[in-house]
Amino acid sequence: MLQQPSNSLILIRLGIEAYRENILFVRADSNICTSEGSTLPTRVRISGKNKSIVVTLNPVHTNILKDGEASLSEIAFQRLGVMEGDTITVSHLSPITSLSDVRSKIYGNKLNDDSIKKIISDVNNGLYSDIELSAFITACAGDHLDIDEITSLTKAMAAVGKQLHWDEKIVLDKHCVGGLPGNRTTPIVVAIIAEAGYLIPKTSSRAITSPAGTADTMEVFTNVNLTLEQVQEVVKKEKGCLAWGAMAELSPTDDMLISVERALDIDSEGQMIASVLSKKAAAGSTHIVIDIPVGKTAKVRDEKDAIKLQYYFKYVGKSMGLVVESLITDGSQPIGRGIGPALEAMDIVAVLQNATGAPQDLKEKALMLAGTMLDLVGETGKGKGLEQAKQILESGRAWNKFQSICTTQGDFKQPQYASFKKEIRSMVSGTVVEIDNRRLAKIAKLAGAPKSPGAGIYFCAPLGTKVLPQQMLFTIYAENENELNYTLEFIAATTNHIVKIE
Amino acid sequence: MLQQPSNSLILIRLGIEAYRENILFVRADSNICTSEGSTLPTRVRISGKNKSIVVTLNPVHTNILKDGEASLSEIAFQRLGVMEGDTITVSHLSPITSLSDVRSKIYGNKLNDDSIKKIISDVNNGLYSDIELSAFITACAGDHLDIDEITSLTKAMAAVGKQLHWDEKIVLDKHCVGGLPGNRTTPIVVAIIAEAGYLIPKTSSRAITSPAGTADTMEVFTNVNLTLEQVQEVVKKEKGCLAWGAMAELSPTDDMLISVERALDIDSEGQMIASVLSKKAAAGSTHIVIDIPVGKTAKVRDEKDAIKLQYYFKYVGKSMGLVVESLITDGSQPIGRGIGPALEAMDIVAVLQNATGAPQDLKEKALMLAGTMLDLVGETGKGKGLEQAKQILESGRAWNKFQSICTTQGDFKQPQYASFKKEIRSMVSGTVVEIDNRRLAKIAKLAGAPKSPGAGIYFCAPLGTKVLPQQMLFTIYAENENELNYTLEFIAATTNHIVKIE
Repeated sequence: MLQQPSNSLILIRLGIEAYRENILFVRADSNICTSEGSTLPTRVRISGKNKSIVVTLNPVHTNILKDGEASLSEIAFQRLGVMEGDTITVSHLSPITSLSDVRSKIYGNKLNDDSIKKIISDVNNGLYSDIELSAFITACAGDHLDIDEITSLTKAMAAVGKQLHWDEKIVLDKHCVGGLPGNRTTPIVVAIIAEAGYLIPKTSSRAITSPAGTADTMEVFTNVNLTLEQVQEVVKKEKGCLAWGAMAELSPTDDMLISVERALDIDSEGQMIASVLSKKAAAGSTHIVIDIPVGKTAKVRDEKDAIKLQYYFKYVGKSMGLVVESLITDGSQPIGRGIGPALEAMDIVAVLQNATGAPQDLKEKALMLAGTMLDLVGETGKGKGLEQAKQILESGRAWNKFQSICTTQGDFKQPQYASFKKEIRSMVSGTVVEIDNRRLAKIAKLAGAPKSPGAGIYFCAPLGTKVLPQQMLFTIYAENENELNYTLEFIAATTNHIVKIE
Repeated sequence: MLQQPSNSLILIRLGIEAYRENILFVRADSNICTSEGSTLPTRVRISGKNKSIVVTLNPVHTNILKDGEASLSEIAFQRLGVMEGDTITVSHLSPITSLSDVRSKIYGNKLNDDSIKKIISDVNNGLYSDIELSAFITACAGDHLDIDEITSLTKAMAAVGKQLHWDEKIVLDKHCVGGLPGNRTTPIVVAIIAEAGYLIPKTSSRAITSPAGTADTMEVFTNVNLTLEQVQEVVKKEKGCLAWGAMAELSPTDDMLISVERALDIDSEGQMIASVLSKKAAAGSTHIVIDIPVGKTAKVRDEKDAIKLQYYFKYVGKSMGLVVESLITDGSQPIGRGIGPALEAMDIVAVLQNATGAPQDLKEKALMLAGTMLDLVGETGKGKGLEQAKQILESGRAWNKFQSICTTQGDFKQPQYASFKKEIRSMVSGTVVEIDNRRLAKIAKLAGAPKSPGAGIYFCAPLGTKVLPQQMLFTIYAENENELNYTLEFIAATTNHIVKIE
């Protein structure tokens, strides 16, 4: 290697938050700007004591920085592990060769194992700008990744992160492909499985395009921001956990890819399978049950697509050494009544407490999933899993286990409603014959979910409900009046039905 | 409409240059941050006296801003037309509905006229973030746009900008699809056509993925940053111009799309046709000649692709009311000897001055293009255009016209070499049988072109050259030693040939 040009700079904290972007602020008249400067965003490598990261250069034309000073965006301070007063050195960034593989994908070519490894390694090392990540995500979206590419992607994503190893031979996990509002079975399933004596080190994501992810809902109850070490401690004590933070360590690139998918509001098949299975593999899971809700307005719209997903999950799982069983479930309407973190949390409490009026659909679905998991690994004989799960839930043991897991994670809080609400009532009489899950999700998001945990929808008009004029269909909760108003404006402008009554 | 939340803030200039990104810096404890805050980049609308733009919010956690103060990235100050001390108001941004059309395209669906109009209008209004622009570019890249979509895109791009109108019935223009290093015919052609008495209000782009665009080369000679009014003045006086700046007004979205294409190093067919023809239409051109070089390492690799491009240009042109004639030309090797802004400028001067040793290939190609244009509109009879062009060039009238155009644009400077150089010599004897245009372009870019105008390659081993050991193949010019070294490192690591000698 030739010698790289290098510049030493002292850090000043300007305190600028640029979200996920690593930014280096340097005087426009400094060496580094005049040698690197261009009309294109320039990316350079900076090094602290032990680490180096890639940053985008933002020249500064005033005296908020003096000669020899530099600043970083808040996240870059964190990632580089430096503080105000520390010294950094700046060096030229070599061309990122994996970008030619991304371009090849954009032009419709198939990527091989090596290309995908290189891309994921470069993404993991922070070499990709948001523009480049977006191009990679877009080129792989739709059905542009075939099953070999998905397998390569899954392996590459699992390989760049940390791995968990367990003493037990059986480690369970579950996942729902999503798209069904309120379908928050995971906390109930984890409590049942852990109480049944199996390991279930569950890590869950936040919402990508939905009003709540399991991590958002669990955060209503407890601390979900666990390190990998904390996950191990909680699971050692409780057999199960419901964590979020550790995911970033298990499959670190997933977080970066998901943040761009979220910004684009897309959630594509290949990426989703790789995201799910790379984390399960890295978490040391051996047996996984996948819930695939199918419905006209769910994420998966028809059974043929669901069967393809089943096949993909099984095939990619097998090449990762995992046993994967997928269930195709009813996705025609929300599960439970709440849509949004706290509202879903309330449903979970009701089911776990065996409360009168607890949503039966949520209870039944959680039992079916837990039962399938127990059947997959259990010694009680096939078909006995459901019975075992039911016994654990109805005896109250699952509720105790759930609270115990929460407490071990650091806290147990009861969910709260947001302050503002508006009831949406029927104009007509008739029977509920169709529900638009996507519009319900959109409404819950406009109302502030998941950012405002108490925001969302309390839904009380499932399919088949006989309604009279002025009967309540759902209630919208929001944490401020503006968000409530935006939501009502959206509903007023919606020409198609949200809940169809005939 | 419901009332929007709004906040008044006084502007301070922090002087932060974030390239093309509109950034609003606001205290993290301000209303606007606490009400909009999230883990996703938040985009809001800000308004000055007469204008409003969309910006990305960057919260600031130190006292570089006081209560009630805000700052903008340098480009946002420009775009909003405000200064330090001015007041802005901040308001909520409504959801960008055209993004669902982009998502639909990502999933492989065809976009209709209306969808494309909406997308381009939103891009033009600055509503798209870089991530979103990148997704749109990527989804349309490869051959993902069909001819109807390209036509819609061209119309939409031409419609959002300003339009030029001319008194003459015939307004000529030319364009090269590029990919061939050194192929800088435009300045010569414009001088000939203007001298022949036809209007040719030429606007040219900077390099997208090449070592130089015509605008980069012309900037070596003169000011290219003309406003639309200045273009009109120059053309009124000279019949022709060689401008860059006005392009942004003629098809303003093109610049935004190209900046993302440049960052991704892709230059796709549909986008290219729309980019070219939207500008020609907006510039009031009526007759256009397109140069399509074809070669193994040119942008267009085989004649079938070139024929498809011919058809696309003609079809889309026709639906815009334009006469478009495309020529398929030899793309097997560079044209002229220089690759890089100033080095190409030297070739142009040599041809225009009819200097001994001027590159004949550049001269012949420029004459062929000018001749075709004259035939397309001329009254001298088909086939006489070439003769007329030759007479204008060889008499020295084109050289006078060229200098006159430059002077009218504000300046006339002679091109200069960069300070550092290295000669690359042959190891063997034989005949040059193949040249890799892409590697040559890459070398010129690594050497600093187009950012450093004097950087690039002087190439002196065209196809068929008989070479002896130690004979010079090309010379690399760079403006600093580091760039020269990077370039040599790349050449040393290149296993395939750049110039193949047998």
